[in-house]
Amino acid sequence: MIHQASLQIKTSGRGLIEITDRVAECVVQSGVKSGIANVFLQHTSASLTITENADPTVLDDLETIFLRLAPDGDPEYRHDYEGDDDMAAHIRSVLTSNELSVPISNGQLALGTWQGLFLWEHRYRAHSRSLLITIMG
Amino acid sequence: MIHQASLQIKTSGRGLIEITDRVAECVVQSGVKSGIANVFLQHTSASLTITENADPTVLDDLETIFLRLAPDGDPEYRHDYEGDDDMAAHIRSVLTSNELSVPISNGQLALGTWQGLFLWEHRYRAHSRSLLITIMG
Amino acid sequence: MIHQASLQIKTSGRGLIEITDRVAECVVQSGVKSGIANVFLQHTSASLTITENADPTVLDDLETIFLRLAPDGDPEYRHDYEGDDDMAAHIRSVLTSNELSVPISNGQLALGTWQGLFLWEHRYRAHSRSLLITIMG
Repeated sequence: MIHQASLQIKTSGRGLIEITDRVAECVVQSGVKSGIANVFLQHTSASLTITENADPTVLDDLETIFLRLAPDGDPEYRHDYEGDDDMAAHIRSVLTSNELSVPISNGQLALGTWQGLFLWEHRYRAHSRSLLITIMG
Repeated sequence: MIHQASLQIKTSGRGLIEITDRVAECVVQSGVKSGIANVFLQHTSASLTITENADPTVLDDLETIFLRLAPDGDPEYRHDYEGDDDMAAHIRSVLTSNELSVPISNGQLALGTWQGLFLWEHRYRAHSRSLLITIMG
Repeated sequence: MIHQASLQIKTSGRGLIEITDRVAECVVQSGVKSGIANVFLQHTSASLTITENADPTVLDDLETIFLRLAPDGDPEYRHDYEGDDDMAAHIRSVLTSNELSVPISNGQLALGTWQGLFLWEHRYRAHSRSLLITIMG
């Protein structure tokens, strides 16, 4: 059985937004008890990741380190049409992922106790981001 | 057909542990001849990766570089409840992955000659790590 | 339904090669209308990623930053049998991915407007790289 659903997530600029509940809702609606939920983000300047969802300082520290790994406005960048965060956003996306495949057991996402699914907006400005959820079971 | 199996892997502190044989065994037990094996790690301070499994110095060098990318005990970290390796472990997990989807052909994992599946423990202390293997075919 | 196809991609040394059309062709041939296309690269010194396919300077800038993250010929590397790009290639592969699972809708890859699938050759020399495409729907 295959079930697909689109999600639209509004971001308010750079930062991590937890989307676990939104994806979990799609799993319940699909009626699939055992299988895989593939979460796919249709953009190249935002990304998906799984990390701890208990302490928000984890999210602050992820920003700190990714600022070092993919500096905004680096003088060596050639791609800067849309500003200092343009190329940095693409690099941050490549260093994380555009897709996650999460198992479903007993009709629910089989995440660990501290795991949350996050959409990471890498641009400074607010955006509306499109996700496609594909549930197979 | 969907087949799920849980694996428990004991780590002895930071380092990469090859899990290819354990996952391959689940594939054989499933009886699936053609499809996908999704390997999912239910933690945020360890991760999964695919890398060369012939020369162990590859694993040493991965540690060397990840120590630079996500330094232990960085003075800018705010999340440090559990010690110098706490936040570094989350970053290392985000830079790699919590899930891998590997194709199955002829009843076996269709890995390349030099590819191994690895669980990467990012904490200093030994842990017991939970994996959920979902085989679809 | 499961459909598998092998692709062989010739690279001309380090750089990103778009493979979207080759994968899209496999999807059409499978006849699957809704599901998942798993793209798997059977090597540890090349990798897969999704990034912007409109402006080629994005690809130049990705090389610039990955040279910093995983320097060629770093004096701390122990694994250097095959030259300065040997270990750097493994690290670049671990920082990106060996597999991508992309949704299929209406018989086509459901990519965003600016998204392309890329094979990233990390070795200096030309190689022939093996991909296995597994389509489930």
